[in-house]
Amino acid sequence: MTAAAAPRAWKATNPEFRERVRGAFDANRAMALIGAVLGEVGPGLVEIRLPISEMHMSHIPGVVHGGTLGMIADSALGFAALSLVPAETNGVTAEYKINLLAAAVGHEAYTRAEVVRPGTKLTVARADVWDVREGEEKLVAIALATLVAL
Amino acid sequence: MTAAAAPRAWKATNPEFRERVRGAFDANRAMALIGAVLGEVGPGLVEIRLPISEMHMSHIPGVVHGGTLGMIADSALGFAALSLVPAETNGVTAEYKINLLAAAVGHEAYTRAEVVRPGTKLTVARADVWDVREGEEKLVAIALATLVAL
Amino acid sequence: MTAAAAPRAWKATNPEFRERVRGAFDANRAMALIGAVLGEVGPGLVEIRLPISEMHMSHIPGVVHGGTLGMIADSALGFAALSLVPAETNGVTAEYKINLLAAAVGHEAYTRAEVVRPGTKLTVARADVWDVREGEEKLVAIALATLVAL
Amino acid sequence: MTAAAAPRAWKATNPEFRERVRGAFDANRAMALIGAVLGEVGPGLVEIRLPISEMHMSHIPGVVHGGTLGMIADSALGFAALSLVPAETNGVTAEYKINLLAAAVGHEAYTRAEVVRPGTKLTVARADVWDVREGEEKLVAIALATLVAL
Repeated sequence: MTAAAAPRAWKATNPEFRERVRGAFDANRAMALIGAVLGEVGPGLVEIRLPISEMHMSHIPGVVHGGTLGMIADSALGFAALSLVPAETNGVTAEYKINLLAAAVGHEAYTRAEVVRPGTKLTVARADVWDVREGEEKLVAIALATLVAL
Repeated sequence: MTAAAAPRAWKATNPEFRERVRGAFDANRAMALIGAVLGEVGPGLVEIRLPISEMHMSHIPGVVHGGTLGMIADSALGFAALSLVPAETNGVTAEYKINLLAAAVGHEAYTRAEVVRPGTKLTVARADVWDVREGEEKLVAIALATLVAL
Repeated sequence: MTAAAAPRAWKATNPEFRERVRGAFDANRAMALIGAVLGEVGPGLVEIRLPISEMHMSHIPGVVHGGTLGMIADSALGFAALSLVPAETNGVTAEYKINLLAAAVGHEAYTRAEVVRPGTKLTVARADVWDVREGEEKLVAIALATLVAL
Repeated sequence: MTAAAAPRAWKATNPEFRERVRGAFDANRAMALIGAVLGEVGPGLVEIRLPISEMHMSHIPGVVHGGTLGMIADSALGFAALSLVPAETNGVTAEYKINLLAAAVGHEAYTRAEVVRPGTKLTVARADVWDVREGEEKLVAIALATLVAL
C-alpha cells in the first residue's frame, strides 16, 4: 500500500514542538491516572507506552479494557497533531474511531500515532496499538482521528 | 428522525441480565480506576456516570480529557450489548467511534448507551455523553459501536 | 435516550436554506447518477430517497450495495449541515462512518439526516437509513459525520 | 510506524481467490453504474480504479463527490476481505469509516485496500484513496472497515 509503505516526513512549524508535546502530556492528568508514559516524539509522530497492570483490566480476566487502549491511542493522535501546529495554536480532538483487533494481554501496550494530513484547520492522523508479550509484539488496535486547531 | 424518536424496546434473553451487567461492571478494573459508577440498566440500555475531578483533566485546564469520555461511552456500549446476550455468551467490542461535540466541564459526566440492533453475532449500539454543569446538562459527545458475541 | 428522544429544533441563519439545499442537490451529479431524489428539507434536517433498481445491487443477488446506502447517507448528512450555514459559506464532509445493520432489499431506501451539533467551523450530524419492503420499513444503516465550513 | 511500514503477507485459503474477487466485482452492479474498474488483486489486497467524469461530481464544480470515493473504498475493503475467506464463505461489510483529506480532482481516482487482520468471523481492512492529476498523485481519503463472514 503506497501510503502505508511511505510515511511522510512532516515539518514542524514550532521549533520547540518536542517541549510543547511533552508539556501538554505532563499537564494531562488522565495520562497520569492510567500510568501512561510518553515515548518517542517527532514531527507528526508521537508514541505513548502503557505498562500494564491489574488496574487496566476489562471484565474478562487478563484482558486489557479496550477503552484504555482507546485512551492512549486518542491521546497519541492528539499530540501528534499538536506537534505540527504553530506555537500559539492549541488542538483538540473532533472525533476518533478505533478497531480492536485482538485481546491485549502481556506486560505493556504502546501506540504510535502519525499525522496523515496536517492542516491549518483540520489534521487527520492514524495510530496503531501493540501489546508486548514475552518479547513478542502483536498489533491489537488501529485508530483514525480528526483533530481541530483552536 | 424516526429512529431517534422511537427507541426500541428490546427483550433480554437472560432474565438475570441486570446482575450480569453489574457483575461485569464490578469486575472491570478500568472503570474503578477512573471512578466511574454504574447507573440505570435496562434491556439494551446502560448508563454510566462519572463524578469529575482533577484526575480526569486534559492538557487544557478545566476540560475533561476526551479519551475519558470515550472510555465511559465505550464501556456503556459494551455493557448495553451484554445485557441482551444469552447467559453463556460473552461480548467484546469490535470497534467504536466517538465525536466530541463540546468541551466537557462541570462536576459530572454521564453516558447512556442503547442497542440499535441486537444480533447473535454482531450488535450495534449508540451512546450520548452529557456533562452536568450547575444543574444544566450539555450533550458533549456521541458514539457508535460494533460489539461481537463470543 | 435523552438526545435521541428529544431532537433539537435548529434555526437556519440563511432564510433561503431550502433553495440552497435544493440547488446543491440538483448540482450534484453523483446523486443524479444513482437516481437519488431529494425529500423533506428542514433546518438541520434532510431526507434523500432512492428508488431501488438492479443498478444498485451488490454482488449478493437482491441486496443493495452498502456503498450506495453510504452515498445517500453521506449526502444527506452534508446537506443537513449545509442547511444551517450562512448563505456565503460552503460545506464539505470531513469524515463519515456508517454501520450496515441489515441487508437492504425492497423497492426503495431512504435516509434522514439531522444535525446533532451545528458550529461555525465543524458540524456533526447523524443519519438513519431505512428500506421499504411491501409497506414495511426496516432500519438498515446508521451513520455519523463531521462536516467542515469553508 | 511499524504496522504501516511493514504490510503483512496474508495467505489466501481459497486458491481461486482472484477469480472469486473478479466474479464478485463483475456481479456488483453498483460498480458498473459508477464506471469503476477492478485493478490489482492479491491475497488481502484489492485495487479499484475510477476514471473520473462529470457524472461523479459533487455540488462543488470540479470536485468529485466524497460518497463516490467512499463507494470505491468500501468496495475495495470488502473485496480485500473476500480474497481471504474460504470458497464457501461470503462476506459483507459491517461498518466503514472514511476521512476525506482533500478535494479529489483530476482524471482518475483509485483506491488500494489491504487486510489489517483477517479472521474467521471478522476481518479488519484499511484503504487509501488517491487522485491522479497530470501525472501526479495525491492522497485524498483514508478508510477503515470491519467485514463479517457469512
